[in-house]
Amino acid sequence: MSSARWWRRSSLKHQGRDKLPIERGCNSQNHGLIILGIDPGTVNLGYGIIRQNSREYEYVASGVLKIPRTKVLHERLRIIYEGLEDIIKRYSPQVAVIEKIFFAGGVKATLNLGYSRGVAMLAVARYDIPIYEYSTLEVKRAITGYGRADKVQVGEMVKRLLFLNKKPDPDSADALALCICHAHNILTRII
Amino acid sequence: MSSARWWRRSSLKHQGRDKLPIERGCNSQNHGLIILGIDPGTVNLGYGIIRQNSREYEYVASGVLKIPRTKVLHERLRIIYEGLEDIIKRYSPQVAVIEKIFFAGGVKATLNLGYSRGVAMLAVARYDIPIYEYSTLEVKRAITGYGRADKVQVGEMVKRLLFLNKKPDPDSADALALCICHAHNILTRII
Repeated sequence: MSSARWWRRSSLKHQGRDKLPIERGCNSQNHGLIILGIDPGTVNLGYGIIRQNSREYEYVASGVLKIPRTKVLHERLRIIYEGLEDIIKRYSPQVAVIEKIFFAGGVKATLNLGYSRGVAMLAVARYDIPIYEYSTLEVKRAITGYGRADKVQVGEMVKRLLFLNKKPDPDSADALALCICHAHNILTRII
Repeated sequence: MSSARWWRRSSLKHQGRDKLPIERGCNSQNHGLIILGIDPGTVNLGYGIIRQNSREYEYVASGVLKIPRTKVLHERLRIIYEGLEDIIKRYSPQVAVIEKIFFAGGVKATLNLGYSRGVAMLAVARYDIPIYEYSTLEVKRAITGYGRADKVQVGEMVKRLLFLNKKPDPDSADALALCICHAHNILTRII
């Protein structure tokens, strides 16, 4: 079954659930796989956390680490690292997902993304959490069925798939989309 | 006085010194400013340490962190971070110097350099060590008097300025060159 078809069937199971995007504390002792998605950046770093239980998944938390532009680069990297450390300690994810990148539209932007992505991967690696990588194309295809879908469509689908009241912030939507992409990837293997 | 002229005069003071590039343990309690230079990379990361006392400086240590190509990226970043942490704990530098980068000859190389440089800056920042940045042009000009000098010339000058028995490995030579550039920069301000 394709992942796009899978979620339609799976989403029916969520119908009676709490639909509020309330942040719920969790730890690795709970049932289910805690997936942390990271959308790196040196100004905004989006993160999202979902819990996957067998054939369904649910929203746990999401947000954006705001990194002051006024700070020097190494201070910003420290904010990213320590912010992610806090998130890891709070939610104890067992898996992390980060976007594969190739180029970010310009040399300076590519370098900045490299800094942020490197530090984010380091934070996760230092907690011995396995990291999976997906390209934007793979994520969009898993979420919307179309690899060239725009941000609005991705945000809309994240909202629907996780039964949120409103569309999340674009950076956290991308991070949640990564989590869902990974969950679909696992599910298509076990279904 | 130009930095190029300065080192010629200053180097006379070193004449009677031990000329062996022996690694000497040191800590921040010793007299002088301990400067750590970092030449980042995802395969080889060069480091160099010098101690600056008033108007002269001396070699303390240098080396290359070899990062296995076979490891996945996040494991390599972890090796860089933890390797640099060990160096920081061992030599207690009060200042770190890293090269300014703009582009590394290709998108993939630029990204890899971004990962390594970001993680190196983070390691230093987490120990509250101030970071200074110099461009290749500034470093080469400070060491050889010519901004477009080649690697061989830089290695040769590092050997001479630090009274080493032989030219250091190119990666650690670049790191030591960064330290010397910073030392010259401080000295030209105080002379």
